[in-house]
Amino acid sequence: MDNLDKIEMRSDTFTLPTPEMMEAMVHAELGDDVYGEDVTVKRLEARAAEMLGKEAAILMPSGTMANLASIMAHCPRGSKVLVGDESDIYIYEAGGAAVCGGVMYEPVKTQADGRLDLEDLQRVFPRDPADPQFALPALLCLENPHNRMGGRVLPLSYLEEIRAFASERQIAVHMDGARIWNAAVAMGVPAAAIAQYADSVQFCLSKGLSAPIGSMVVGSEAFIGDVYRIRKMLGGGMRQAGVIAAAGLVSLNKMIERLAEDHENAKKLALGLSDIPGISCDHHAVETNIVFFRVTDPRFTWERLVEELRHKGVFVDELGHGRIRAVTHAGTSSRHIEQAVAVIKETLA
Amino acid sequence: MDNLDKIEMRSDTFTLPTPEMMEAMVHAELGDDVYGEDVTVKRLEARAAEMLGKEAAILMPSGTMANLASIMAHCPRGSKVLVGDESDIYIYEAGGAAVCGGVMYEPVKTQADGRLDLEDLQRVFPRDPADPQFALPALLCLENPHNRMGGRVLPLSYLEEIRAFASERQIAVHMDGARIWNAAVAMGVPAAAIAQYADSVQFCLSKGLSAPIGSMVVGSEAFIGDVYRIRKMLGGGMRQAGVIAAAGLVSLNKMIERLAEDHENAKKLALGLSDIPGISCDHHAVETNIVFFRVTDPRFTWERLVEELRHKGVFVDELGHGRIRAVTHAGTSSRHIEQAVAVIKETLA
Amino acid sequence: MDNLDKIEMRSDTFTLPTPEMMEAMVHAELGDDVYGEDVTVKRLEARAAEMLGKEAAILMPSGTMANLASIMAHCPRGSKVLVGDESDIYIYEAGGAAVCGGVMYEPVKTQADGRLDLEDLQRVFPRDPADPQFALPALLCLENPHNRMGGRVLPLSYLEEIRAFASERQIAVHMDGARIWNAAVAMGVPAAAIAQYADSVQFCLSKGLSAPIGSMVVGSEAFIGDVYRIRKMLGGGMRQAGVIAAAGLVSLNKMIERLAEDHENAKKLALGLSDIPGISCDHHAVETNIVFFRVTDPRFTWERLVEELRHKGVFVDELGHGRIRAVTHAGTSSRHIEQAVAVIKETLA
Amino acid sequence: MDNLDKIEMRSDTFTLPTPEMMEAMVHAELGDDVYGEDVTVKRLEARAAEMLGKEAAILMPSGTMANLASIMAHCPRGSKVLVGDESDIYIYEAGGAAVCGGVMYEPVKTQADGRLDLEDLQRVFPRDPADPQFALPALLCLENPHNRMGGRVLPLSYLEEIRAFASERQIAVHMDGARIWNAAVAMGVPAAAIAQYADSVQFCLSKGLSAPIGSMVVGSEAFIGDVYRIRKMLGGGMRQAGVIAAAGLVSLNKMIERLAEDHENAKKLALGLSDIPGISCDHHAVETNIVFFRVTDPRFTWERLVEELRHKGVFVDELGHGRIRAVTHAGTSSRHIEQAVAVIKETLA
Repeated sequence: MDNLDKIEMRSDTFTLPTPEMMEAMVHAELGDDVYGEDVTVKRLEARAAEMLGKEAAILMPSGTMANLASIMAHCPRGSKVLVGDESDIYIYEAGGAAVCGGVMYEPVKTQADGRLDLEDLQRVFPRDPADPQFALPALLCLENPHNRMGGRVLPLSYLEEIRAFASERQIAVHMDGARIWNAAVAMGVPAAAIAQYADSVQFCLSKGLSAPIGSMVVGSEAFIGDVYRIRKMLGGGMRQAGVIAAAGLVSLNKMIERLAEDHENAKKLALGLSDIPGISCDHHAVETNIVFFRVTDPRFTWERLVEELRHKGVFVDELGHGRIRAVTHAGTSSRHIEQAVAVIKETLA
Repeated sequence: MDNLDKIEMRSDTFTLPTPEMMEAMVHAELGDDVYGEDVTVKRLEARAAEMLGKEAAILMPSGTMANLASIMAHCPRGSKVLVGDESDIYIYEAGGAAVCGGVMYEPVKTQADGRLDLEDLQRVFPRDPADPQFALPALLCLENPHNRMGGRVLPLSYLEEIRAFASERQIAVHMDGARIWNAAVAMGVPAAAIAQYADSVQFCLSKGLSAPIGSMVVGSEAFIGDVYRIRKMLGGGMRQAGVIAAAGLVSLNKMIERLAEDHENAKKLALGLSDIPGISCDHHAVETNIVFFRVTDPRFTWERLVEELRHKGVFVDELGHGRIRAVTHAGTSSRHIEQAVAVIKETLA
Repeated sequence: MDNLDKIEMRSDTFTLPTPEMMEAMVHAELGDDVYGEDVTVKRLEARAAEMLGKEAAILMPSGTMANLASIMAHCPRGSKVLVGDESDIYIYEAGGAAVCGGVMYEPVKTQADGRLDLEDLQRVFPRDPADPQFALPALLCLENPHNRMGGRVLPLSYLEEIRAFASERQIAVHMDGARIWNAAVAMGVPAAAIAQYADSVQFCLSKGLSAPIGSMVVGSEAFIGDVYRIRKMLGGGMRQAGVIAAAGLVSLNKMIERLAEDHENAKKLALGLSDIPGISCDHHAVETNIVFFRVTDPRFTWERLVEELRHKGVFVDELGHGRIRAVTHAGTSSRHIEQAVAVIKETLA
Repeated sequence: MDNLDKIEMRSDTFTLPTPEMMEAMVHAELGDDVYGEDVTVKRLEARAAEMLGKEAAILMPSGTMANLASIMAHCPRGSKVLVGDESDIYIYEAGGAAVCGGVMYEPVKTQADGRLDLEDLQRVFPRDPADPQFALPALLCLENPHNRMGGRVLPLSYLEEIRAFASERQIAVHMDGARIWNAAVAMGVPAAAIAQYADSVQFCLSKGLSAPIGSMVVGSEAFIGDVYRIRKMLGGGMRQAGVIAAAGLVSLNKMIERLAEDHENAKKLALGLSDIPGISCDHHAVETNIVFFRVTDPRFTWERLVEELRHKGVFVDELGHGRIRAVTHAGTSSRHIEQAVAVIKETLA
């Protein structure tokens, strides 16, 4: 088993821009976007809003800022944002909403399929909202597909329930849809069919869609206006941002359908892994491009397995609770998957 | 069953100042404490520090500010404070540390006896503290006795373990000892024997100790110096604070031993309740002055029971998860307890 | 010149509660104000609202918190509060609105008579409020009378202009009326005649009015509702707060008219000082109970003069820019003033 | 006067990436910089640190974030940052340090040449730093060259004085060197000769240096480590950031020396303007690439002049106090300057 490529499955954030993106970047019509004069950025924002079925969109330098600015726009100082206890917002975004927004995170148990139970959400609301002891919820965040729950996709019926709940409770819904296009492709629906249940959605151009940099927030015009102010304050206003918007336009126009391939590869990987003695992998749970597995062979800790695989050119990583995560993307072909399965099998033999 | 007193058991915060306190307030030597010139305040602070075995102490207008300023003094902006998910700090203090401190709360499951499991605490620390995705823990808060866990007292052996854990992890320990004197009396140890395991402790003069206003924070001199600055910024510096400090001195000098009586009354109440059909009450769990019970009689919701009891002069309240809380204190005599049990029995008959 | 009393003129915060206040505190009807059940507090709040001509009032532990909570209630995160560059809010309140509120202070030049020029205020507003580079003003704070400008009182005509300006600019007006009663007495108008031009006013019970502790915020019901939530979060909710409210009621009912005496004493002091060689004091500028003077005698720095006077029992202090401040109050009699003038004269002889 | 190019002098942020930059972007070696694996970014950071004579550097999406993260890294919550009252940080960055950092801005008068007087700075420090009324200064920010003061360059001797002052006062110095390369070129010294007096410096790749996006912060390794954490929290971590770093490397390697040309053009413009009746322009004050002028012709407001020039293809803008700013850069040739002068002359004729 020699002459292997490096197989990078730690994350789909490792995707590299395509030649078409590079071409687009070089030829993009540019302006100073801080003055609102970069037409390529405007074009990308219009396209994103249209595809998600929202009034407006805004380009952000990262998904972290997209989520942070969205939370700040929805949540006044001293309110609560309800988040899943396994959500990326709660775990991986450095507490930004507390630091920059004076907002309290209230983590709610994440179900195995990425849902937050309505009953759990219900319990967060104090019986007497006039009681000043309680910070009051202003926003509920969903993650879809759910990273730490293995790329699981939230059913539309659940989103409908959440929407009704939030409307009744008079809180907003923000969707961390970093990989919303994977959800859309997996469900065979337009992203707008998913986004309709949320007041705002953020999604990444830089994950499966392969753009080098950037995330988008979509929502109502008034909301995006607020996010726009907050983006400037956080330092997310960029000058000739058209260079990255140009790549983002290619992402939206050319890179979505091919995500199906990543999903097939993920299923293939999971199936392969589930057959390896010493590995536990529930291939039925794979809905998008994320595969979780555990090493059950007593000779291996996950640390040791990850380390050995790395030496053999297969890059995966732990993602909480000792689970190993492998993510498929434009840089992982069907052949890579076969190689990866072979390498893991050999390692555990 | 007529001529009943109003029996106030919603909280020990309803305690009224004693005649001796009133006397002390009237004759207190006063000055402007914002200038550091109120000798009665200084005397109270010295006494509190001494009794808790710490270098210094500071008077605060409330337990909420005592906890908030302590968290802010321990936690730099952007760090995490680990709190029990059933702790008063997490639930009843309006998210102050997020708003004023830019600190992220990380709630950890509270065990039935008020402990936080070391394993759960362990899990909160990221494998790689250099990874900037993670807000880093700076402080662990314990609550002792634990309000929402029924006034349970944390064993000294557990505190010792927590101390060792925190020192190894290089985080500070703050004890929300709002009712620490109840813990000390229940365990038959000086409060300093409990406080030794924490870097800082807050306790209330205004609960079982019956003072009208005020809480204290104790800790090292440097720490109290930091709290002092923060207190001013939050608006907790008070002028002739000696009027309330005078009552606080009576609290510390005269009101502690009598807490044993409250604990006896609480046990008596729990025992009485556990005998009433339609009430579920674990009298073995009562260690201090707090009694939790549930109504199991299907004819009653807790709301209805609380309401009916109120009409009959017995004041109790719900405290989360449908549990009813009754708190004994200087204003609830043994006879009150008998009456209360009788009223509840009659109501459910 | 022997047998002198200590003459405390560093501040009117050194006033001690009167015997009548002590009596009232001892006999106050008390309850737990955190539960909203302290009738003495309610009575004080109703009285304060009525006297200032506002819908509602709330008791705070300090003027600092009264200002901080007011600013937070008026200013959303990320907005600006316009303050005088010589105002107590800007200088002496530890930046609380930035820390707890995420609010940016914009200091505007304070005129010699305590006014902020409309032109200076005008300049603070960006030409294009949609430009996200600019934090937008949400609140204008006035100080009346103005401490660091020598207790100067703002004319009603000026307040009317400010009101019109603020309304046109759609920002709120908060008055730091720590000593508003001095202004009212000096102008011979009810405090409500002053307060009518502001959306909210804070005043201190603990300065000239001689209560030991406490300040009040008055405003609309909705506004006070917001301040109430913020007060809890900051830790300003106090239990049997009736003990201090009782003194505050005496302040409002009995201590206001006598402020005229303090003003006479201040004028007398200023007149006396203006006659002493080596002292510069503009007695025409004295409108309330604050006197500023400078030492011009080249043998003395202000530090040395303040120190020597202190040894002789006359307590005054520097208050910025090398000016010495003397404040008259219920504890400084006409005889004290004569003695103080004599001591200063003797010292500079 | 027909066939004119559009002459864009509103800002040097309008510079477009050069063909060499585009080439570099397309061929850049990329990785995921959030994982620290983008070698092009690493190369840029090493180059920037080296050129500024500091231990380390970090790429940021904007100058606003570069300044904000630097202030947050230097200033603990509740401290003060001293800034010029005409500085970009104070005026154009939306109060970010108050919002995200809980830091209080203290604006100090900016002198006509961009300096802050040491005496003014001195006055900001309270006599008694232990007095909790005062937020304490932790950082002093300089702007060099100074935008709103017409691109004036701070003399090295002044920087040396500031350094000594700050060290004695134990506060840090941050330089907003958005255009530091213009200062270095104007003074004929390496940028490191300027940066040596500051603990940290931010500079923009996207202004005169013509890169499309990005700013750098340089400082000690520990400091940059702190900025790195804060950058992630604010959402400034970008994935394949090498695409913009590649352009930034061209900026640092190829675009600095040519700034001399911009300075010549600015002087030429100022000289031309100073000869036009109805225009007031102090050409002696022009040291770098920024020219300020006023319209004195009573027939014109600045608004009308700016508007008319825009219609004629000459883009300039107001920058405070009614002054019009013109900025020269890689997109404004010597011929453009001649045309602009001619257009302005004609307009005012």
